Amino acid sequence: MSEILTRARQFIAALPHAHALGLEMEEVGSGVAVIAMPYDPRFVGDPSTGVIAGGAVSTLMDTASGAAVMCHPAGTGVTATLDLRIDYFRPATPGQVIRARAECHHVTRSVAFVRVLATDEDESRPVAMGTGAFTVTLPGADKA
Amino acid sequence: MSEILTRARQFIAALPHAHALGLEMEEVGSGVAVIAMPYDPRFVGDPSTGVIAGGAVSTLMDTASGAAVMCHPAGTGVTATLDLRIDYFRPATPGQVIRARAECHHVTRSVAFVRVLATDEDESRPVAMGTGAFTVTLPGADKA
Amino acid sequence: MSEILTRARQFIAALPHAHALGLEMEEVGSGVAVIAMPYDPRFVGDPSTGVIAGGAVSTLMDTASGAAVMCHPAGTGVTATLDLRIDYFRPATPGQVIRARAECHHVTRSVAFVRVLATDEDESRPVAMGTGAFTVTLPGADKA
Amino acid sequence: MSEILTRARQFIAALPHAHALGLEMEEVGSGVAVIAMPYDPRFVGDPSTGVIAGGAVSTLMDTASGAAVMCHPAGTGVTATLDLRIDYFRPATPGQVIRARAECHHVTRSVAFVRVLATDEDESRPVAMGTGAFTVTLPGADKA
Repeated sequence: MSEILTRARQFIAALPHAHALGLEMEEVGSGVAVIAMPYDPRFVGDPSTGVIAGGAVSTLMDTASGAAVMCHPAGTGVTATLDLRIDYFRPATPGQVIRARAECHHVTRSVAFVRVLATDEDESRPVAMGTGAFTVTLPGADKA
Repeated sequence: MSEILTRARQFIAALPHAHALGLEMEEVGSGVAVIAMPYDPRFVGDPSTGVIAGGAVSTLMDTASGAAVMCHPAGTGVTATLDLRIDYFRPATPGQVIRARAECHHVTRSVAFVRVLATDEDESRPVAMGTGAFTVTLPGADKA
Repeated sequence: MSEILTRARQFIAALPHAHALGLEMEEVGSGVAVIAMPYDPRFVGDPSTGVIAGGAVSTLMDTASGAAVMCHPAGTGVTATLDLRIDYFRPATPGQVIRARAECHHVTRSVAFVRVLATDEDESRPVAMGTGAFTVTLPGADKA
Repeated sequence: MSEILTRARQFIAALPHAHALGLEMEEVGSGVAVIAMPYDPRFVGDPSTGVIAGGAVSTLMDTASGAAVMCHPAGTGVTATLDLRIDYFRPATPGQVIRARAECHHVTRSVAFVRVLATDEDESRPVAMGTGAFTVTLPGADKA
């Protein structure tokens, strides 16, 4: 396992909310992060179907987005969500892992823009898509 | 306590993810819902400050928004999030209850629009604001 | 007329796109701006109904939002749109003036958050609502 | 030229606001549309730089998005914008054509989701990105 992935996993493991949701960092790269969330009945949003709550999915997507910003070469490893829009396409299939793949695709002096896609095992039909803006602190710049 | 509030509380109590987050329905009305989330160290997003994760705040806001749609007179009590944008203004103060007040302010034949505000004890400076679109099923109409 | 309103009107008059749309600054204050757009058949989006194009309405709302940021006491009079989400509630009534009222309700070191509402003559039923993030340049800070 | 492109061009030519902005339909396919907007000094948003107004870019993107929905096989050729979020990455270079490529990537019974990208001649660095929800009328369903 690459050293950066090891460190990213330790980082995620130390975040209480990520630990509570069982989030697992699967992949990190230059401005990219993939985080998985195993199915957990505690986070069901609709007891009649067993579908995971949209809020848990959006938390996963937000966390993956922040991780993508933190490992972007232009940033300094610290970020916070400014805004995040999530479009929900369909309920995730109960029992399946949900995986968020985030890409920090654009960085200005103080704002990083991210796209993130959530899928379950049927990767051809995404569960949700997100677009957001995150703070980014550049060396020598004021904090956003 | 009004009967509708009693029923709304029972509804929330039966949602696993709302129970996991400790969400408490405080107020429901015609297209309006207020839900509180007590401070809980398990949902901290930044261990160095004790600030609750943005994802937990957005889950609270999403749940309040759905509740506001469900109790809107034009709906039928069933809804799902189509899209939700959340703007984060500042970290919630650690240790304080976070409260989301959602208002379903517009309903078309198949879509309900919601505004939602999250505050901690300093209600003059909101923590986050959300705007979203939710499905709404009208009597005799197709399901969105 | 106040001096600031006079200057704001001159500013708007010098913007080609605002001139092309016939935008009229009606009110400016501390982080608030109201701009009107008279009905103009050239900007109809649906010839069968005479309804103004959503894009013209969003341009009006974007311009009002930028003006609200520019006249916020914490800014320096220069801004650019980072992101803007617009929810469309209903078609504006053909023949009526559309008016956008924008409020810059929160400013961080590098980002200003704005809410904006568009109405026609029936002010009780808004035509559209917007929420956005704009750059803001503070004295001594890096440009966003 | 394909018949569908011919018809799409006639359609765009008949829309007053699209005609006013000089929009040109370049490509239409199954749930995809590409529309170009030539540089026009009348729609400059910043006279000191000659940069086109963000509102004109968002109008272009909104129009391309609607066109993508209208030519999606699951729709019936009629649509309206429910909500649209646009992220602006950089000013378009003055003097260059701006081109919006929209894709209707997901359709439910009453809502179509669209992604749209705006580029100038430097296609590797997009000018803006949009994500939106549009009404869609399916055969036999109620109108949204």
